[in-house]
Amino acid sequence: MSNDQKTDLQKLIDKIKNIDTAMMTTADDEGSLRSRPMRNMQIKEDGVIWFFTGYESEKTHELQKDAHVNLSYAKPDDQLYVSVSGRAVVSRDKAKIDELWNPALKAWFPEGKEDPNIGLIKVTIDKAEYWDSPSSAMVHLYGV
Amino acid sequence: MSNDQKTDLQKLIDKIKNIDTAMMTTADDEGSLRSRPMRNMQIKEDGVIWFFTGYESEKTHELQKDAHVNLSYAKPDDQLYVSVSGRAVVSRDKAKIDELWNPALKAWFPEGKEDPNIGLIKVTIDKAEYWDSPSSAMVHLYGV
Ligand SMILES: Cc1cc2nc3c(=O)[nH]c(=O)nc-3n(C[C@H](O)[C@H](O)[C@H](O)COP(=O)(O)O)c2cc1C
Repeated sequence: MSNDQKTDLQKLIDKIKNIDTAMMTTADDEGSLRSRPMRNMQIKEDGVIWFFTGYESEKTHELQKDAHVNLSYAKPDDQLYVSVSGRAVVSRDKAKIDELWNPALKAWFPEGKEDPNIGLIKVTIDKAEYWDSPSSAMVHLYGV
Repeated sequence: MSNDQKTDLQKLIDKIKNIDTAMMTTADDEGSLRSRPMRNMQIKEDGVIWFFTGYESEKTHELQKDAHVNLSYAKPDDQLYVSVSGRAVVSRDKAKIDELWNPALKAWFPEGKEDPNIGLIKVTIDKAEYWDSPSSAMVHLYGV
């Protein structure tokens, strides 16, 4: 990663770190685009964003056929909007699940991190953009 | 439209009528998914949502190649998230531009509604889903 990319990524992290939920958009077999709220688990300096998911779920099936994903972040009170374009991989990486697990996740995985259907979505960022006032033009970040 | 669809659509309108900005996701030539904030102009009982746009813009070019679109609406304070899957048509319908125009749009179209590049995006809803509490399952609306 170049220094410019590092600076951009840090800017992106600063924008989204206080927005705990992203809308994740995926394409289904017919090209129809669906989104759903996803609790943001971790965004790191390596440009990867992690989410928990049911390992078998509609979105993981969609991602296995077409890995493209958009994450949108909205904080209407601050007029802040962020778009992240990337590619997703679905995994069951035990060590990563341990690292990211927290008890609040029991709302989705009542059996805890031993839930047989627990999985992770790892999004690698290709491109990001943000808007932080209604009249401002978009700001490109990262890999344009 | 069936009566069930009418009820669903009314429910959808109630959910999003107080969220003035949607994130609109489109697919580009390579299948990469991009989103951007769009001011919601009108949603009507006929299941159509209107937006203003630059007639020549990246998103209108993307939509002319692949009309699939996702609109996501987030109201984090109320834990409300809505996904609308649909298809978009780009137009320059003069009568509709007159009907929807309001002076606040000068932020994007300084020349007003006579701006040579003014256009509209008309989204016809195929499917919608919403979530209104963190643990709740999604609720399907409209054409599932
Ligand atoms: C709060 C907010 C609302 C916006 N609403 C619109 C809109 O209604 N129509 C529009 O064309 N652009 C709107 N924009 C600008 C777009 O997000 C985007 O930057 C612009 O349309 C160019 O997008 P494109 O290059 O993908 O075509 C808005 C931006 C913000 C921050």
